[in-house]
Amino acid sequence: MRVKIILSYKGTNYAGWQVQKNGLTVQEVLENALFKLTGTQIRTTCAGRTDSGVHARGQVAHFDIETTIPAEKLPFVLNTMLPRDIRVLQAEEVPPTFNARYSAKGKRYIYNIYNSPHSSALNYEYTMHVPQKLDLDKMQQCAKRIEGTHDFKAFCAQGSSAKTTVRTVYGITIKECEDNLIQIIVEGNGFLYNMVRIIAGTLIEAGKGKLTPEDIDNILLLKNRSLAGFTAEPQGLVLDEVFYD
Amino acid sequence: MRVKIILSYKGTNYAGWQVQKNGLTVQEVLENALFKLTGTQIRTTCAGRTDSGVHARGQVAHFDIETTIPAEKLPFVLNTMLPRDIRVLQAEEVPPTFNARYSAKGKRYIYNIYNSPHSSALNYEYTMHVPQKLDLDKMQQCAKRIEGTHDFKAFCAQGSSAKTTVRTVYGITIKECEDNLIQIIVEGNGFLYNMVRIIAGTLIEAGKGKLTPEDIDNILLLKNRSLAGFTAEPQGLVLDEVFYD
Repeated sequence: MRVKIILSYKGTNYAGWQVQKNGLTVQEVLENALFKLTGTQIRTTCAGRTDSGVHARGQVAHFDIETTIPAEKLPFVLNTMLPRDIRVLQAEEVPPTFNARYSAKGKRYIYNIYNSPHSSALNYEYTMHVPQKLDLDKMQQCAKRIEGTHDFKAFCAQGSSAKTTVRTVYGITIKECEDNLIQIIVEGNGFLYNMVRIIAGTLIEAGKGKLTPEDIDNILLLKNRSLAGFTAEPQGLVLDEVFYD
Repeated sequence: MRVKIILSYKGTNYAGWQVQKNGLTVQEVLENALFKLTGTQIRTTCAGRTDSGVHARGQVAHFDIETTIPAEKLPFVLNTMLPRDIRVLQAEEVPPTFNARYSAKGKRYIYNIYNSPHSSALNYEYTMHVPQKLDLDKMQQCAKRIEGTHDFKAFCAQGSSAKTTVRTVYGITIKECEDNLIQIIVEGNGFLYNMVRIIAGTLIEAGKGKLTPEDIDNILLLKNRSLAGFTAEPQGLVLDEVFYD
């Protein structure tokens, strides 16, 4: 059967999602657990391959598995074989046409900023520290110009192999939380490589008064990566949810 | 001059606050930073000695130091010498009669419970996992019976050397937060060894329906540790704030 799982992980100790030679990845650990369970090598496909240090609260993956365990029980069995920083939250049988990556209609990412003179002892693995006081109104005004359907070439890391750099950002919310935490919540139909982190870096510069809404319009128009903000640090990013029909 | 500092730390990688032979402690790391700064051994005293794995958002400590650096600048200097999981947030000069421990008028602790079938991949270092659904009303009803001035002998770890086991709990709030998080917020004039963790364990049992408000009255009356709940795991506990006049 084909199974869709929702999983959460703390990315700190992983070299991202995708299996690679230089370091342990979430995919490798998950596939090792599936191997322990079934004795066969099972390949998994995720909705959004996260980078080293990036977290997930609601990553989605699919795989094909032969087992007598009902899909709904798989999280309980798999979690006994997974380290504490990776948890399978839900599993369900899906039609063989379901693909975690290609069936996804959209995603929500959250970027966490710790905006205080000193960095956070409790949350340094989950936030980017910005000591300078950020102006949230300015951030929200610039965020409005990023929303919508645009060619996001300027918000894409160099060397990306994406066929088209046109994407739709459904909305960006700047949320002030307790304890000096500022969240940038971004929803869209799809994201280019490093796109959310470049949006976060650009909005941080906006919050410092270094970029205006007119600058954002120009960056989108000129499609030049060097005009957009820096790539915000990986540990501030969380893949929050993936949407399907 | 005598200096009062407020500091925050992630307790995961420390054998608690107090210097000891078996493992690195927060006090040791802080005193090493002060030694680097001044070249002399400076002893620090904290408001509430936290156990191994317990966190602090607002621990308070005092020490005497000879330096030309104004007290207000000390956090910036010390933080360059401290690991990322310990941050000094504030410092101020205080009268030589100030004592972080004995001048404290009260403290607030927060106990974090992750109440969900699966444990939290993102917050396993900051929460105790309770898979069984907790009844918050039952927890709050039992919490009401713990509030006030009582002999808390039943809520104190065996072997404690406290002269009196009478304490006043100003209030206990049970708060349902986002993402399956339940917080037990406890304020009081002082706490016995393991008292907050035993209160948390007792309220978790209340939330499971295993202890009633009448049971709480009896536990306080009979002063018997074995009647109260288990000692909840250390990583759920945060020393949130220390109060002074």
